[in-house]
Amino acid sequence: MSCCIHLMLYDFIAEPGNNELTVKEGETVTITNQNIGGGWIEAQNSRGEVGLVPEDYIEVRSTVTDVGNTLLSLAALSLPLSSLTFSFSCLFQASNGNDPWSVWNADPSGGSNNNWASNPEGTQTGKTAADPWSAASQGHPQAYQGPGAEDDEWDDEWDDMKSTGGYAESESGESGAMQRGGAHATSMKISLNKFPGFSKSGPELYLLCKQLAKGKEKLPIYMGEVGPVWSYPESQLDCVVADPKKGSKMYGLKSYIEYQIVPSTTNRPVNHRYKHFDWLYERLLDKFGSAIPIPSLPDKQVTGRFEEEFIKMRMERLQGWMTRMCRHPIVSCSEVFQTFLTYKDEKDWKTGKRKAEKDETVGVMIFSTIEPEGPDLDPVEVEQKCEQFSRFTKSMDDGVKEILTVGHEHWKRCTGPLPKEYQRIGKAFQNLSSVFTSSGYQGESTLTDAMTAAGKTYEEIAQLVAEQPRKDLHFLMETNNEYKGLLGCFPDTIGVHKAAIDKVKEGDKLVATSKITPQDKVTMAKRVSIMSYALQAEMNHFHSNRIYDYNRVMQLYLEEQVKFYETIAEKLRQAHSQFTTM
Amino acid sequence: MSCCIHLMLYDFIAEPGNNELTVKEGETVTITNQNIGGGWIEAQNSRGEVGLVPEDYIEVRSTVTDVGNTLLSLAALSLPLSSLTFSFSCLFQASNGNDPWSVWNADPSGGSNNNWASNPEGTQTGKTAADPWSAASQGHPQAYQGPGAEDDEWDDEWDDMKSTGGYAESESGESGAMQRGGAHATSMKISLNKFPGFSKSGPELYLLCKQLAKGKEKLPIYMGEVGPVWSYPESQLDCVVADPKKGSKMYGLKSYIEYQIVPSTTNRPVNHRYKHFDWLYERLLDKFGSAIPIPSLPDKQVTGRFEEEFIKMRMERLQGWMTRMCRHPIVSCSEVFQTFLTYKDEKDWKTGKRKAEKDETVGVMIFSTIEPEGPDLDPVEVEQKCEQFSRFTKSMDDGVKEILTVGHEHWKRCTGPLPKEYQRIGKAFQNLSSVFTSSGYQGESTLTDAMTAAGKTYEEIAQLVAEQPRKDLHFLMETNNEYKGLLGCFPDTIGVHKAAIDKVKEGDKLVATSKITPQDKVTMAKRVSIMSYALQAEMNHFHSNRIYDYNRVMQLYLEEQVKFYETIAEKLRQAHSQFTTM
Repeated sequence: MSCCIHLMLYDFIAEPGNNELTVKEGETVTITNQNIGGGWIEAQNSRGEVGLVPEDYIEVRSTVTDVGNTLLSLAALSLPLSSLTFSFSCLFQASNGNDPWSVWNADPSGGSNNNWASNPEGTQTGKTAADPWSAASQGHPQAYQGPGAEDDEWDDEWDDMKSTGGYAESESGESGAMQRGGAHATSMKISLNKFPGFSKSGPELYLLCKQLAKGKEKLPIYMGEVGPVWSYPESQLDCVVADPKKGSKMYGLKSYIEYQIVPSTTNRPVNHRYKHFDWLYERLLDKFGSAIPIPSLPDKQVTGRFEEEFIKMRMERLQGWMTRMCRHPIVSCSEVFQTFLTYKDEKDWKTGKRKAEKDETVGVMIFSTIEPEGPDLDPVEVEQKCEQFSRFTKSMDDGVKEILTVGHEHWKRCTGPLPKEYQRIGKAFQNLSSVFTSSGYQGESTLTDAMTAAGKTYEEIAQLVAEQPRKDLHFLMETNNEYKGLLGCFPDTIGVHKAAIDKVKEGDKLVATSKITPQDKVTMAKRVSIMSYALQAEMNHFHSNRIYDYNRVMQLYLEEQVKFYETIAEKLRQAHSQFTTM
Repeated sequence: MSCCIHLMLYDFIAEPGNNELTVKEGETVTITNQNIGGGWIEAQNSRGEVGLVPEDYIEVRSTVTDVGNTLLSLAALSLPLSSLTFSFSCLFQASNGNDPWSVWNADPSGGSNNNWASNPEGTQTGKTAADPWSAASQGHPQAYQGPGAEDDEWDDEWDDMKSTGGYAESESGESGAMQRGGAHATSMKISLNKFPGFSKSGPELYLLCKQLAKGKEKLPIYMGEVGPVWSYPESQLDCVVADPKKGSKMYGLKSYIEYQIVPSTTNRPVNHRYKHFDWLYERLLDKFGSAIPIPSLPDKQVTGRFEEEFIKMRMERLQGWMTRMCRHPIVSCSEVFQTFLTYKDEKDWKTGKRKAEKDETVGVMIFSTIEPEGPDLDPVEVEQKCEQFSRFTKSMDDGVKEILTVGHEHWKRCTGPLPKEYQRIGKAFQNLSSVFTSSGYQGESTLTDAMTAAGKTYEEIAQLVAEQPRKDLHFLMETNNEYKGLLGCFPDTIGVHKAAIDKVKEGDKLVATSKITPQDKVTMAKRVSIMSYALQAEMNHFHSNRIYDYNRVMQLYLEEQVKFYETIAEKLRQAHSQFTTM
């Protein structure tokens, strides 16, 4: 592996004391040891410095097929195809150390990692790269999934499926590509919405579709107190992800982790490997992505330093992801999701898998299944709602990123310098105490014992301080990180709506130039109203979940903080009681 | 002033955000503004950088008389006179930026600021120079008093007295010099003990003195449970230093601060200016310095940024100094100390002053007044005790310096980065709360109010953290700083004893070479035993005070720490109560 070009995709700032290596985006490195595990690789930079870097931050360049993958990841990075030829040239420049991404940062869409057309925080993703959380979905699930794609342990047959699917679509940018196929096809569909050359093809497909598929599946929207709402099942689905087991195949040549998922409905456990979750994600994204933000899996998040820790963390995050999907009335009731949770045997699962992959109602066509109660909405109102949601999700994204940044710095302080300082205070007290013991003066044992105890207390405090973040800050970070991922999907979802609204706006012109009939125009207005109902229902779902999640996590955080400070106070009270002034 | 050479005496590390200027020992600077006040001066370094530096860190070189003072301060810096000529030359090198002190660091006595013949911490004094506490007596009261001597606002007549006194002795290094005169004579006497060329003259004077002055003043030593002890008065003297008033003279051309001192005995207030305290210090050092460590005044300690704060701090430390003197059975009962506390009027004060200055029983002669009960001590035991005290005071000096260093760093963190971080956490919560408020979704005011409250709570915590050191760490630092000053005196006190012991050891040789009579030898042994009784009594006094002081300050510190953590826990509990999961 070390024979080919290794290119850093993102900045990575080494955490002190973890023998990590700080690298810049676009820097080339040599792999010195790839068997570190836990998502880490040992690499050497041009200055000969050696250290650990997250493997997902590295892009390998060697063979033609890799260039193929690159093509996919470029697409995933939401680049106009027109720029591909150019980007190839810079890929090869990369070999002599140039930064192939730099040119793309000039891209008005704000660079590869950032979906928010004009996001001031955009640059922060680099800053906080060392943060186990900020390594998560970079606001753009596909841009995020892209680069690391080759590390996934797919079966061969899946690989073929993926690559043929991938190539096909990425070369022919037709609307046909929007309807079926693997991850990258989908990611391309989503991401292309941002580019004038393609965006309209998305909603157009639905807005002007002659006759809508008369499938049995219907997604009603009711008018609730808060406005349009999805129809919620009586009992909310839930599931437990647990008991990760190492499995192996090909006579142990290939090993993998299998998780057990137990849905609250059947209580019957089913087993899935990570790649199955990934498959589910792609299906959900493919089917609901235009109407419902589907957060990316906790895939490329660099967390555990060691395999165990990594597996534990990944499971915790898969649980979080599944819980969120279970809480969504549309997703949780969808056939593909139910198949995933309740398949009876291998055969049943394979059948369900094929059925899901054949599903025609994907992309924007999902809107054709939505049936809102209530009158058509006035286009002006539709646009206002859309604008409002866009503003809100944007500013919440900023707010969440701020908490992640601050929280990460706090984490570093609490696990680094602060406990060291309390330790030194503790040592200083104990040293003075032992000096006093050497005085040879009688009757000062009370003082020396008390000072030793006080010193030990500060050493205990040091430990409490260092351990605390895992008990409270961790969950605050996890929740905000989940929301960062979720919010990262909205620009695409909202993008589809904006494109639809624009289409409706040029309705008259299109009629005048007889591109469409007056009837088409009426239909479009009706359908964009349906899309708006869907968007509003989704936003209301998002809000109610948000309120619940933040209440819960803030309670947990503050509760633990109170315990923390009370424990310290109590320890100090005991230390205090040992001193006596005669 | 800016016309002459300004030479940095110590390293000074600027505290960030206080527009201070980092300077190296021996660096030359230009004074740009000396009317800053509070012990600060604005200076410019060779690189043109401008900032505040402690004025006491600057030595001014200009006129011949200054060179005279230099001579004194050199003596104060405990240099053998033999090296003076050489040091003169480097003083003038100083003008072209060289470090005149560096040569002295080669000095076996361990450099100008450090009295401990082989003190590993010695270098630390530089490191912690920015510390308001470490700026205090650098282990050597005289070395410390020396350099800054010229900033003191002495009346003219006092200046004369001092300089004549000073010159006379520093030029003729005879034993006559040991008995009377100004501060610098004394400081020289003490410091010279370290140098073979002079050390013997100190104890010799007493050990071989033909007939001891038959003064009425007697200092008995009794045998207590812990060994030899001074005789303590029934009721301990105490006094209150308060009510600093700005006075002025010469039609307001010269202004000064006058403090009110109220002794517990008379309850009648007397007024003294700083220079009177300084005069008292010199007298006590002169009279008792060989037997009793007399800590230097809180003179050159850079504390307040502004005059008020500076005066308040200086008063607090004068109070500390006076309390310690009051607690000493020998010092508090001495005539000079009583005069200082209880003089009736100006005339009475002047008379007392002159009497004290005429006192013949100074330097090593103080031992002639000591009358221990109990048998003469075996020379071996005398030496063992001396060694033991030397070891203990040395290691306690190290322990105390460690606490000061650690404490200072903790102080900086608690007033700098830590509160800033809590503030940012608070802001992040409040920002997210206001984003939520903008959602347009109904019924989340409970959440947003609670999050705003939580945010405000963390801002309050930031403030608590920043204010806490003044409430607890401050006193811990002050006490340790006092002890640092006190311990800095022991090397001189112990030095006198070591010299005496050596003298007795060579007794036989001296008899053989008939330098002394056999009778002299017997007398010396007896007198060194008396000195040992005194040293033991003083150590026992030191120990009992130490035990009391550290019990007291640790109690205070931990008490405040408990309150601090409890307050935070309570604030967080209130913030927590505002969140609700429906």
